[in-house]
Amino acid sequence: MKDVAREAGVALGTVSKVFNNKPVGESYRKKVEEAAERLGYQVNIYARGLRSDKTYTVALILPNLYHPFFARLANEVCKALLEKGYRMIIATTDFDHQAEESCINMVKQNKVDGIIGLTYNPHLQVDDSIPFVSIDRIFGNNIPCVSSDNYMGGQLAAAKLTEFGCHRLLYFRTGSATFGECDKRGSGFESYCQTHKLHYDAIYLNDEDDLGDDPFYQYLDEHTRDGVCDFDGIFCSTDLLATHILKHLQSRGIQVPGQVQIIGYDGLCQFNLNDPFCSSIAQCLQ
Amino acid sequence: MKDVAREAGVALGTVSKVFNNKPVGESYRKKVEEAAERLGYQVNIYARGLRSDKTYTVALILPNLYHPFFARLANEVCKALLEKGYRMIIATTDFDHQAEESCINMVKQNKVDGIIGLTYNPHLQVDDSIPFVSIDRIFGNNIPCVSSDNYMGGQLAAAKLTEFGCHRLLYFRTGSATFGECDKRGSGFESYCQTHKLHYDAIYLNDEDDLGDDPFYQYLDEHTRDGVCDFDGIFCSTDLLATHILKHLQSRGIQVPGQVQIIGYDGLCQFNLNDPFCSSIAQCLQ
Repeated sequence: MKDVAREAGVALGTVSKVFNNKPVGESYRKKVEEAAERLGYQVNIYARGLRSDKTYTVALILPNLYHPFFARLANEVCKALLEKGYRMIIATTDFDHQAEESCINMVKQNKVDGIIGLTYNPHLQVDDSIPFVSIDRIFGNNIPCVSSDNYMGGQLAAAKLTEFGCHRLLYFRTGSATFGECDKRGSGFESYCQTHKLHYDAIYLNDEDDLGDDPFYQYLDEHTRDGVCDFDGIFCSTDLLATHILKHLQSRGIQVPGQVQIIGYDGLCQFNLNDPFCSSIAQCLQ
Repeated sequence: MKDVAREAGVALGTVSKVFNNKPVGESYRKKVEEAAERLGYQVNIYARGLRSDKTYTVALILPNLYHPFFARLANEVCKALLEKGYRMIIATTDFDHQAEESCINMVKQNKVDGIIGLTYNPHLQVDDSIPFVSIDRIFGNNIPCVSSDNYMGGQLAAAKLTEFGCHRLLYFRTGSATFGECDKRGSGFESYCQTHKLHYDAIYLNDEDDLGDDPFYQYLDEHTRDGVCDFDGIFCSTDLLATHILKHLQSRGIQVPGQVQIIGYDGLCQFNLNDPFCSSIAQCLQ
């Protein structure tokens, strides 16, 4: 900074003000910035963080990075943060409640400037000592929650299946037992069916029950006679579930979409590249 | 630390030694650790980093996080680092050479303890001022490179296609123009074919030429007459390419694997879950 001050012909304090974004005359700011550029001066974010008590670091807490939805989300968050000069720390929790608590403690003591969390621990304590943005789960009035319009998504799915001629609808839901915004997919779907007096059924399962997709398969088999399924339109709470259901029906000789139409939720693509796994309500940029 | 010293009945210096992993009598270590646990003392990694000049942070530089191979890699690196008490910063470069340089500069000034990089910039300068581990690309003697045994992978693919009765083999390669370890897939494949005097052809394309998969499709169409392809076994340098080739052949009415057998490379699965896109040489845990 002394070199910059000398090069710019200003006082050291002026350089400090410019580098720390404090008020200073525009002509001084220009002189300092030009001198800094001539000298190839780079702000050391780490040192700046020490002084300003900012770390220019945001932690992203996710169950894992390999599920294509989490991978896409992490990719976009990372890009957005880098563009603003922030670094992203990632901590994966593998859906483990204890790991989620440890992560929050770890990132807190690392003095990150904020946390973005997609968490499943129903007892997770998030205080307001550090800015926290939740994805898909509402903690309370002081914690912002970002989510797609899941209720509208559920309604869209029901409307689309109906538009395409389906009369006997079915909703399959799997996911965490912890209530989250994603549960509104089913509410939207059911509400549309009720309002439009459509025949429908809905099966809800929790990941925590660890039953896999078998109960869904069993339900479908029980509702299939002579190669004809009782339902002609199925909305699944995720693309992953939809893909499994699609394969199961095909293995039973039932044509999709000929006999049964399926819509998933997420909008994921094979290799995350322009090639959807199934028809879907997309909440994901591709 | 004063509280811990009082609780343990030892000198402050003893507590400091234990917390900083310096030599100290075992009975003292035990006393301090027990006292620390009773008091719920947690080491502040950030402060420890300041004193020891370590940050307990490793940066992972990847083109993106949405490609399933990069996503899986990031997931495993993150897990391994967390287990050792390290945080992971991720920086994505979108294959941009300038972005790769910026990332390295950024993470250096952030004083990370090390960098793990999967990079494509042929002019990228990696000095030894900070530990750097390269993935899939050899920089020189002082920079360790981690890679699967790509040469062996290529040989395995040729051997497997031959074992399954293929006689006219083909290798399709797409990837960066920058030479990397992945190029040994083709060398291993070609070497096996030459040693075993197998009829084969090989087409190499660079991502940088931006031709997509069209030249491959064109080549296959030129070598297909009356619904029969000149080749009956194709090894593709990635699962993504293999999936595209598979779909193209099917769109031409050619049965896979009935008429043409295809092997990819990576071992990726749909949703990264137990359901391979295609037969593959797997370098990826699932």
